[in-house]
Amino acid sequence: MRKVQAAMTQNIYDDAGFFQNYSALPRSREGLAGAPEWPALRALVPDLRGRRVVDLGCGFGWFARWAREEGAASVLGLDVSRNMLTRARDMSTDEALHFEQADLEQLSLPQAGFDFAYSALALHYVEHITRVFAVLHRALTPGARLVFSVEHPAYTAPRAPDWIRDAAGRESWPLDGYLEEGPRVTDWLAPGVMKQHRTLGTWLNTLIDCGFAIRHVEEWGPTRAQVAARPEWARERERPMFLLIAAQR
Amino acid sequence: MRKVQAAMTQNIYDDAGFFQNYSALPRSREGLAGAPEWPALRALVPDLRGRRVVDLGCGFGWFARWAREEGAASVLGLDVSRNMLTRARDMSTDEALHFEQADLEQLSLPQAGFDFAYSALALHYVEHITRVFAVLHRALTPGARLVFSVEHPAYTAPRAPDWIRDAAGRESWPLDGYLEEGPRVTDWLAPGVMKQHRTLGTWLNTLIDCGFAIRHVEEWGPTRAQVAARPEWARERERPMFLLIAAQR
Repeated sequence: MRKVQAAMTQNIYDDAGFFQNYSALPRSREGLAGAPEWPALRALVPDLRGRRVVDLGCGFGWFARWAREEGAASVLGLDVSRNMLTRARDMSTDEALHFEQADLEQLSLPQAGFDFAYSALALHYVEHITRVFAVLHRALTPGARLVFSVEHPAYTAPRAPDWIRDAAGRESWPLDGYLEEGPRVTDWLAPGVMKQHRTLGTWLNTLIDCGFAIRHVEEWGPTRAQVAARPEWARERERPMFLLIAAQR
Repeated sequence: MRKVQAAMTQNIYDDAGFFQNYSALPRSREGLAGAPEWPALRALVPDLRGRRVVDLGCGFGWFARWAREEGAASVLGLDVSRNMLTRARDMSTDEALHFEQADLEQLSLPQAGFDFAYSALALHYVEHITRVFAVLHRALTPGARLVFSVEHPAYTAPRAPDWIRDAAGRESWPLDGYLEEGPRVTDWLAPGVMKQHRTLGTWLNTLIDCGFAIRHVEEWGPTRAQVAARPEWARERERPMFLLIAAQR
C-alpha cells in the first residue's frame, strides 16, 4: 500500500505575533460590521431560517453567531486555530453553535448534513481545493448554496504585491505571475504567511467540475459610497481585493 | 413616445489603416492556426455535425468555414465590417455559409434558430452586452452552447496598458481601473480604437442573469509549450490576455 502524505495547512493564526496583529484588525474587533465586503457577501446568503450551516474557517465565530440570529437551526464552525476557537467559544453559550478544530486539507463532513455552507477568507490557504469542494458537494443537500470569499487572484498573484506609482503619482497594481498557480509567501501581519494562488478560472471550473452551478461572481472592491466615507480606500477600486462566489449544489 | 437613441459599434475594421494592419496579423493571414488561443477555444466547441451555427463578428470567416468542414449544417457569419465580409465571401462558394452585415448593438436573430453560437474577440467592442446575451438565449435551442473569447478584463482595464519593468528588469502589468467599467480608448493598429471594459464578474453574472449556465471559464495565456516555441511570449503568462467562456442555454 502506498503511504499518502497528508497535507497540513499552515496554522499561522496560532503564531503569537500574527494572532496579536490579527486580533487588532477592525474585522476582528468589530466583527462583520468591520469587514467592508460584508454587505456584498451578505447579499449572497440565502434565508437561513431552519437551515443547518457549516462555516469553514469560522475564526472568532462572528458569522456563526449572526447566522443563529438569522434563524439558522445550527451552525458548525470549523477552524484550524486553537486561538480562534477558544475566543469563539468564549463569546457564546448558544447550544446550537458548535466550534471544532479542523484542518481544511483533511475536511470530513457527514453526507447531506448541511443546508448551507459558508467560508470567509479561508480557502485561499487550502492547497487541495478540489477535495474541499467535493466534500462540500457531498455534505450539502440538493439546492443548497455555498457562499465564500477569498483573496482575489489579481491580489494573490504578484511576486511583489504592493502598489507602484508612476511619474504622475498615479498608482497601479503590478500584476504578474497570474498564470503560475501555487503557493505565495508574503509578509502580512507576520513574516512568511503562505497562501495558494489560483486563477479565477480554476476557482470556477473546480466548482463546476465538482457538480456546483455558479450563481454569482463578485470581484469586490469598496463601493463609491464606501470610498466617499474612507477616501484612503480609493485605490482598492484599481484592482479587486476579494473574490466572492455563490454556487449551488 | 420617447425616442430611443440607437447605439452603434465603432466600425474600426473599415478604417483603411486599421484594416491594412489587421490584415497583416498572423490570425488574418493564417486563420485559426495563426491564433495561439485557438486550441483552447476549440476544446470548448461541441460536436458541430448537423448544427446550425451563428458566428458574431465572423471577420474573414475562418471559423465559419472550419465549422462547415466539421459538419455544421449551416453557418451564419455576422460582422459590422464590409471589408471583412467582402473578403469572407470571396473565400468560399459554399451555399450553406451566409455572411451578413450586422451591428451587434442592433443584433436580431430568429427564435430557436441556432444550435451553437460562437464569437471570437468581438464582444468587447459591444456596449450593451446584456441585450446581446438575451438575444442569443432566445435564438439558441435548449441545451445549445455559446462559446466566446474576449480580451481579458485585466487586459482591458488599465489606462496605460503596457508592460512596466522594475529595477531588476522584471516585467509586470500595471493593473488599474479594474472596477471602473466602461469604454477604453487605446491605440491598437490605429489610433482611437474603442473597447468596452467590464469585470469578469459582470461577464459571468450577465450570462447567468440571461439564463445561461456557466460551463467553463479560461483565462488564456500561452501554454509552456507555446512559450518554449516562442520565447518572446513568456510575459503573456504574467497576466491573462484573453478570456474564453463556454455557457449553455
